[in-house]
Amino acid sequence: MTAVRILGLDPGLRITGFGVIERHGTRFAYVASGCIRSGEGTLPERLATLFRGVDELIATYRPTEAAVEKVFVNLNPQSTLLLGQARGAVLCAALLGGTAVHEYTALQVKQAVVGYGKADKVQVQEMVTRLLGLDATPGPDAADALACAICHAHQSTHPYAAQAVRRRGGRLLVPPPSRR
Amino acid sequence: MTAVRILGLDPGLRITGFGVIERHGTRFAYVASGCIRSGEGTLPERLATLFRGVDELIATYRPTEAAVEKVFVNLNPQSTLLLGQARGAVLCAALLGGTAVHEYTALQVKQAVVGYGKADKVQVQEMVTRLLGLDATPGPDAADALACAICHAHQSTHPYAAQAVRRRGGRLLVPPPSRR
Repeated sequence: MTAVRILGLDPGLRITGFGVIERHGTRFAYVASGCIRSGEGTLPERLATLFRGVDELIATYRPTEAAVEKVFVNLNPQSTLLLGQARGAVLCAALLGGTAVHEYTALQVKQAVVGYGKADKVQVQEMVTRLLGLDATPGPDAADALACAICHAHQSTHPYAAQAVRRRGGRLLVPPPSRR
Repeated sequence: MTAVRILGLDPGLRITGFGVIERHGTRFAYVASGCIRSGEGTLPERLATLFRGVDELIATYRPTEAAVEKVFVNLNPQSTLLLGQARGAVLCAALLGGTAVHEYTALQVKQAVVGYGKADKVQVQEMVTRLLGLDATPGPDAADALACAICHAHQSTHPYAAQAVRRRGGRLLVPPPSRR
């Protein structure tokens, strides 16, 4: 069975988390994780730093698929705009780097990893550590990105899972085989 | 005197307006204008189309400076997010294409072109047509982008103009020479 390499991304203007995993059938293996920091500079310079960072990750780890967390817009408009701009840079870099880009809401990601859509950051970090058999707990941004990659790996293994999340108001209900 | 070529951009997810002008000292000359349409597709695909479009404009017209209109955030959060993502793609492409990127608010652009910060789209189109001596009126998105380029050309000719706009609540007051 061929391994599929997935790049998970949790975009933010200051810090964009990343996590790379490999899916072998229904099993996952950790490859790498960390953060891209946009540093100091003008807004265009910081966005370009994020773009280049994602581009370098793709050149280094050669994922074929990318999973990006959808943004929660219930912030103040200025924060939403800044986050949107960071997302624009990250999504562009992922697609232009040649990956197939998929998007998941925080609800879908938490459902897939913790089994509970309102799980907190610590629960996500713990479950990511357990699911990938890590020796140390990744930081919150890297953990969110790894969780997003796991969510995509899970969804592409069980293609009805994400539909179920959408249909049943957040409860992950995989339909029984007879109804597929 | 060396001509400076400026790319004006008015980012939007569906349509991003562009306008290229040349500044010769204190005079401007029209080079090109139009729109990049993101077309159909997923959000990442549409953002990548905007990125590639700006990249192609830079390859074709070789501007050294870019002027991008700042976004008005007083929309609903979802619209702000979409606009932010389009801006992220456009700003990245402009900077990675090698231009020096400058940002101007709609107030600064309208002040520079119409002399009135609350000018409507038709007034901007008319003034852009007159200032650049065009035979036909450009569409609203192209006109906004040309206006942004003119604003930057004006600001880089009169470097105190933008400061004055910021200081005096929207009135374009260039300080007298003795105070510069």
